Amino acid sequence: MTTVITLLTDFGLQDVYVGVMKGAIATINPSLRVIDLTHQILPQNILAGRFCLMNAYSYFPQGTVHLAIVDPGVGSQRQGIAIQFKEGYLVGPDNGLFSGILEFSPALAAVHLTHSQYWRTSDPSSTFHGRDIFAPVAAHLASGVPLQDLGESINPAHLVRLSPPSFEKTPTTITGYIQYIDRFGNLITNIPSAAIALSNWQLIIKDVVIPSKKTYSDVSPGEALALLGSHGWLEIAVRDGNAQTQLHLDWGEPIQLLYEEK
Amino acid sequence: MTTVITLLTDFGLQDVYVGVMKGAIATINPSLRVIDLTHQILPQNILAGRFCLMNAYSYFPQGTVHLAIVDPGVGSQRQGIAIQFKEGYLVGPDNGLFSGILEFSPALAAVHLTHSQYWRTSDPSSTFHGRDIFAPVAAHLASGVPLQDLGESINPAHLVRLSPPSFEKTPTTITGYIQYIDRFGNLITNIPSAAIALSNWQLIIKDVVIPSKKTYSDVSPGEALALLGSHGWLEIAVRDGNAQTQLHLDWGEPIQLLYEEK
Amino acid sequence: MTTVITLLTDFGLQDVYVGVMKGAIATINPSLRVIDLTHQILPQNILAGRFCLMNAYSYFPQGTVHLAIVDPGVGSQRQGIAIQFKEGYLVGPDNGLFSGILEFSPALAAVHLTHSQYWRTSDPSSTFHGRDIFAPVAAHLASGVPLQDLGESINPAHLVRLSPPSFEKTPTTITGYIQYIDRFGNLITNIPSAAIALSNWQLIIKDVVIPSKKTYSDVSPGEALALLGSHGWLEIAVRDGNAQTQLHLDWGEPIQLLYEEK
Repeated sequence: MTTVITLLTDFGLQDVYVGVMKGAIATINPSLRVIDLTHQILPQNILAGRFCLMNAYSYFPQGTVHLAIVDPGVGSQRQGIAIQFKEGYLVGPDNGLFSGILEFSPALAAVHLTHSQYWRTSDPSSTFHGRDIFAPVAAHLASGVPLQDLGESINPAHLVRLSPPSFEKTPTTITGYIQYIDRFGNLITNIPSAAIALSNWQLIIKDVVIPSKKTYSDVSPGEALALLGSHGWLEIAVRDGNAQTQLHLDWGEPIQLLYEEK
Repeated sequence: MTTVITLLTDFGLQDVYVGVMKGAIATINPSLRVIDLTHQILPQNILAGRFCLMNAYSYFPQGTVHLAIVDPGVGSQRQGIAIQFKEGYLVGPDNGLFSGILEFSPALAAVHLTHSQYWRTSDPSSTFHGRDIFAPVAAHLASGVPLQDLGESINPAHLVRLSPPSFEKTPTTITGYIQYIDRFGNLITNIPSAAIALSNWQLIIKDVVIPSKKTYSDVSPGEALALLGSHGWLEIAVRDGNAQTQLHLDWGEPIQLLYEEK
Repeated sequence: MTTVITLLTDFGLQDVYVGVMKGAIATINPSLRVIDLTHQILPQNILAGRFCLMNAYSYFPQGTVHLAIVDPGVGSQRQGIAIQFKEGYLVGPDNGLFSGILEFSPALAAVHLTHSQYWRTSDPSSTFHGRDIFAPVAAHLASGVPLQDLGESINPAHLVRLSPPSFEKTPTTITGYIQYIDRFGNLITNIPSAAIALSNWQLIIKDVVIPSKKTYSDVSPGEALALLGSHGWLEIAVRDGNAQTQLHLDWGEPIQLLYEEK
């Protein structure tokens, strides 16, 4: 059985950083399958990385190792960690990057990465733990090394958590904000589809009313719509267009969902 | 024998959409080899996707499954399809994306993707068929499921076709237009190399005469040339430079090839 | 044992050029593992490609084939080459792209790629040797074809060398320049960490003094620091920021390291 390692970083693709991490993995076990989630998380934006991981993990095979690095604290006192959860393993810095996944599927066990025999070198670079610690540890984990061998066990309750602001609900409204904007300019809110109780709603953003629809083709080209998106969040889109530029909106903008009188 | 699946989309690389599709494939069969053609087709530009597929398919192993998604009609009445042709298989929306390949190598059989047992879920997202329908179907096809099992057979003659404007030919001229511009700023016309009967020609664009040459180094750095490009089309380039910005040209610009008197 | 081929080009990711090269490799041997180093070398910037290769090669398994194409001279008299060195093989144009690697690990043998039976076609495109010559040759080499079978042996001393300006050293100073800027805006100088004899130094650039530190978290957010980077070069960074834009610096800018009096 081929084991999969996914990679998510803010390293971009213009430099050789990602390639070098894959080299470090292949040096340990060239038969591992590596799948890129994205390397274009905005530099040092842990919340965006957390959001992307949370939306992606459940589509991978049982036992997948998710290696994620958005790590402004590299070289400081922040710890490197590996976590076991129901669907697989998580490897990276202990800075909240995995706390979105863990809201859906709690940690079953966790270790601090203190055993340097599983690193590329016992004298790692102070700025590139991805290459020297995290990628080798992920490769060993995916090759069958038990989690407990990688370092000292820690209580999963002590892992760093990041909690972006939650949505607020009344009987007639839900208030939230734009938590992510994708390549198409679709505006993804922090309101999960499951929180929306009734089907007769509309969305208000900057005093503009946006109708709720099922899919893009339910409006005319160039028109805005609100819909329940493929990752399970309320989204705002423009058919055959870009909602971000057309509606002049950005990350963090507050939005309000209004249930309509029947 | 490892089977190859290629991916072409307009999803970009900043989000996790592409990674999630690869997860859906690996969940079905982690030993499949996935090769990215590109994910940077301009959003919803089916013609550009059609052009790229047409230029790429013939360089892959016999039996390769080409999975392509540029799909402004997702969630509407447009059908999902799988096609068998001489060199392999095609999976994606029925919107003309594959009609360039099929001009060179006709469809041998085609099905509508109506059998949901080969999907990720029988209740697919209305906006992300790539993850829920097309990637799983491609993985099953590459793993040996027969085409006919994937849905209802359709007559290949009924597949949606897209035909960009053709070139026009007289005994002394060929008239065409710029159908694609690549990362280097090379301007790729819609005139196939095979349509050019004589070797003594020059190209005229916006009243500028561009000489015909064999390769970049046949002119001085900074000079423009017209040449028969690597994918079999007449191209305009600037040696060590960018023809698009230097000649102030864009997609769709008309061009004319003139045979010279001997 | 799976053999690895790495790819480094200036082809970008918007077109199908890279995908088509991977198709040419898979057509010869679909079980080869291909790892992208980067495809975003600035167009035709051989020195940047040389720098990236030099920093990446040592992190890959023994026997890896590094296929690299930054090739403004394609179609001219410049030769295609394959090189054997201690850690593996190098395949690409003979224009200095590999001369950085070879400064660290000399060529053991080299051939001109003259044997067209290992190409995709004996009539290669004059503008895309990557697809028609280099990728097929790399695939054959990674599949066990001996180097000597690929063409005529040449004396490694005759390979084209590129030598960017070196740093200069006095008992109290080292003078160099910025040779590469990465995605984070980190400024990477041409001064190797190993050339720095003492630990009490500071860096001066455009009259600004930048303190030497071990890692980013040794300064406050927004402050600049100089550090010994992960690839073994003196670097300038801004914690949680972009040194290139904040310090208004660009490729080639001269810098000076001053040893301080104790």
